[in-house]
Amino acid sequence: MVPAELLTTLYGEQHRLCPTPNPQIDLVLSAEREIDLYELEQLCDAVGWSRRPLRRVSKALQHSLLRVGLWRHDPRLPKLVGFARCTGDGVVEATVWDVAVHPHYQGVGLGKALMVYVLDQLRALELDRVSLFADPEVVGFYQAQGWELEPLERRCAFWYAP
Amino acid sequence: MVPAELLTTLYGEQHRLCPTPNPQIDLVLSAEREIDLYELEQLCDAVGWSRRPLRRVSKALQHSLLRVGLWRHDPRLPKLVGFARCTGDGVVEATVWDVAVHPHYQGVGLGKALMVYVLDQLRALELDRVSLFADPEVVGFYQAQGWELEPLERRCAFWYAP
Repeated sequence: MVPAELLTTLYGEQHRLCPTPNPQIDLVLSAEREIDLYELEQLCDAVGWSRRPLRRVSKALQHSLLRVGLWRHDPRLPKLVGFARCTGDGVVEATVWDVAVHPHYQGVGLGKALMVYVLDQLRALELDRVSLFADPEVVGFYQAQGWELEPLERRCAFWYAP
Repeated sequence: MVPAELLTTLYGEQHRLCPTPNPQIDLVLSAEREIDLYELEQLCDAVGWSRRPLRRVSKALQHSLLRVGLWRHDPRLPKLVGFARCTGDGVVEATVWDVAVHPHYQGVGLGKALMVYVLDQLRALELDRVSLFADPEVVGFYQAQGWELEPLERRCAFWYAP
């Protein structure tokens, strides 16, 4: 068992341990520990997302309302194995983006734990509504957690720079 | 014809005059002129939106990436007749919210002019993608302007605080 003090030092006061089926592994959620851009890029590569310039990713993270990492704990070098972030005004609207769990760590409920943590952080801001855009294969994942699909028949639209 | 200097004083350097079918009326788009909260509330009432506490609206506007007003020009007291705002990280993602045109001013292309202005402002930030949630009755409005409905079969989901 990892001492709570060490976890707080590494991951901040608001960290949360995730239950895992493997007692040899400690997995920790944190909105406070800084995200290493190279680690994030490796994670995005692992889930098959196209790369973005690191300079832009850095700015995007900086201007996000919330950045959450899921780390495989190691006292010297925690490894980033999950991620999510939110944009928004922090009062009325927040939108979740870039939810990822490393393929080696999928299938044991970590995506759900990550989303619960994200919503708890947003709830602390007293946000009353959160939105996201779900790819077809994860619509069921979100609905099972109480997200409403297209409430009031709302549809999403995207505009891409020419 | 209103002197350009006066328009710049009232609405900022980036203001844009909207063509209107009535030459007696000048309508001006601006991302710089400050939005009066009471005027915004009146506009939202006019389009039938439920009220939000002004303190929260004020904070939400403050933390928005972009706030655009459409004013019926008057040298002493311009009247707010349209509005839109965006949240986002200003780099990778921006999301448009609260697009409204006062019912008395609808049907003459002002909604389109407002959205063109919003996208021009976002383009200046070098954003390459913008998202929004469209109510069913305005899906066609956005599609006609080049917005892609549910690209990659993406669906929107909302979570509401219990």
